[in-house]
Amino acid sequence: MTSLLASIADCVAPQMASVDRLFHEELKSDLPCVNTLVKHVSRFRGKMLRPLLVLLSGKATGHLTDAHVTIATVVEIVHMATLVHDDVLDEAELRRKGATINHLRGNEAAVLLGDYLISHSYHLCSSLDSQTASRLIGRTTNQVCEGELLQIDNRNNWDLSEETYLRIITLKTATLCATCCGLGARLAGASDADVRRLETYGLSLGIAFQIQDDILDVIGDATTVGKTLGIDIEKGKMTLPMIHFLRTAPIEHRTLLRSLLEGRDPDKAERVRNLILPSPSIRYAQDRARALVDQARSALTPLPTSDAKTVLDAMADFVITRPM
Amino acid sequence: MTSLLASIADCVAPQMASVDRLFHEELKSDLPCVNTLVKHVSRFRGKMLRPLLVLLSGKATGHLTDAHVTIATVVEIVHMATLVHDDVLDEAELRRKGATINHLRGNEAAVLLGDYLISHSYHLCSSLDSQTASRLIGRTTNQVCEGELLQIDNRNNWDLSEETYLRIITLKTATLCATCCGLGARLAGASDADVRRLETYGLSLGIAFQIQDDILDVIGDATTVGKTLGIDIEKGKMTLPMIHFLRTAPIEHRTLLRSLLEGRDPDKAERVRNLILPSPSIRYAQDRARALVDQARSALTPLPTSDAKTVLDAMADFVITRPM
Repeated sequence: MTSLLASIADCVAPQMASVDRLFHEELKSDLPCVNTLVKHVSRFRGKMLRPLLVLLSGKATGHLTDAHVTIATVVEIVHMATLVHDDVLDEAELRRKGATINHLRGNEAAVLLGDYLISHSYHLCSSLDSQTASRLIGRTTNQVCEGELLQIDNRNNWDLSEETYLRIITLKTATLCATCCGLGARLAGASDADVRRLETYGLSLGIAFQIQDDILDVIGDATTVGKTLGIDIEKGKMTLPMIHFLRTAPIEHRTLLRSLLEGRDPDKAERVRNLILPSPSIRYAQDRARALVDQARSALTPLPTSDAKTVLDAMADFVITRPM
Repeated sequence: MTSLLASIADCVAPQMASVDRLFHEELKSDLPCVNTLVKHVSRFRGKMLRPLLVLLSGKATGHLTDAHVTIATVVEIVHMATLVHDDVLDEAELRRKGATINHLRGNEAAVLLGDYLISHSYHLCSSLDSQTASRLIGRTTNQVCEGELLQIDNRNNWDLSEETYLRIITLKTATLCATCCGLGARLAGASDADVRRLETYGLSLGIAFQIQDDILDVIGDATTVGKTLGIDIEKGKMTLPMIHFLRTAPIEHRTLLRSLLEGRDPDKAERVRNLILPSPSIRYAQDRARALVDQARSALTPLPTSDAKTVLDAMADFVITRPM
């Protein structure tokens, strides 16, 4: 996805290069042991979706400034911190085709490295002249944490409603995307109306992104997706296809899924996938994601034509067509 | 310690009550599951040492403002986040006489709750008019994380030098105390010279505090100290008494300590304590802590006489005489 997105985002290429420089500058330490860990985690960097959202939203509504580069770097570091801590949570053995930090160095290093990243993201954010960005980033990370906590509170809750599911993924994934877009526009001097449009775009795109992640956890191929699949199932995390299945499938199928989810079958993930794949539940989730992408794209309509707008439009589509 | 410190800190009692209110206000969530976790962690609140440092440093050098209450609350939340994440790291089963979050709800809840606390501390900090405090807090938490990472990088390193040991505890404990004092003075409009004096006080006090913690891990009584003892030993964490012992004890004692530390004796902690207790190494560590406390108190000397100054002076002494 990196190269694909980068190739369509030519119009912010110089700023993306600056994000890369600032990222390394901010995370550099006097301690060799810290640099070794940071170097390792840098290799996991993937889509750069969030920095692109900041820069493209700014470009689509006004002029880019140094503050855009700063915030784009801040959100990427925040995102990486959540990935590192998610690895502690999920005991995933693969993440972005590399070994995870916790697998290599133990849970303790992963917790501390995540904390180091979080701390540096706020530190970098506080280098800006105004507190506005710090306040918005702080409010957003509050919500991300709430989403994660609500999610583990609903672990193994097979009765999870679609409403609560949407609340979880909105908090833990979509709010950060919305903040990226809204802040990018705000820093470019966009009107309040345009800031709201970009926030709507980011929120819808973020929800769609997470639904697609859930779908890929069921239908994806570990080699392409680059991380351990079936983790959601193993960890008792309900996904949209499963929620739909447990609401609509024939009663004997529902009973089978529940007993699989509650049991300790070593092939649990595989059997759940085989049960859900032929059902209409994958399609249902795909339709939901598609509707959200349409919503995101509609929010952009009133903006003047620009390269950045075109790329934002294409990115929305990419979120649900991506193979990883 | 709470009541003892509180009783000597009468002069900032109203502000301490405000810290308590702001603490609960900031951490309140719309999600019941989050409030349950926060409520549990609030019960662990202990010495309130860091908020007292902010308020007393301000009072000793000028006038207290609302910003003091905000920062005092911020540093307490930061400190609690480190306690919660330390519990993940240390697998401690007792912390402040309560069960730890990770023991009750699993490592995942502990990681996320710590993240929730960190996020709210920065969010609260960004509510101030100026970025100065955010920058200082961000820089300080960067250092705290570095100290923790340097510490685990030196786990099971029986050759750890006293110099690196001091660097670790300075980064992970003392810098936050120094920032509390310096920021308290700065917000009260103190002169640069007074800000530096208070920073020196906080730094020396913080190092002494950590050395005393190390001493208590060897000589303390679990009932009084209120947390699992011998953890440092179990986790291969070198403490000042051990470093001194491995440098100065008779060769056969040193060899015995090394083989105990490297081995898997189920009574390891007990046997290490029995070996170190009769040696001069405890006394050595106590002398080092005493010298640091004297240094902290000297830094206060030029300040005008005040109740706050008297309390700061008494607190320095308390840090190394405390039984917990």
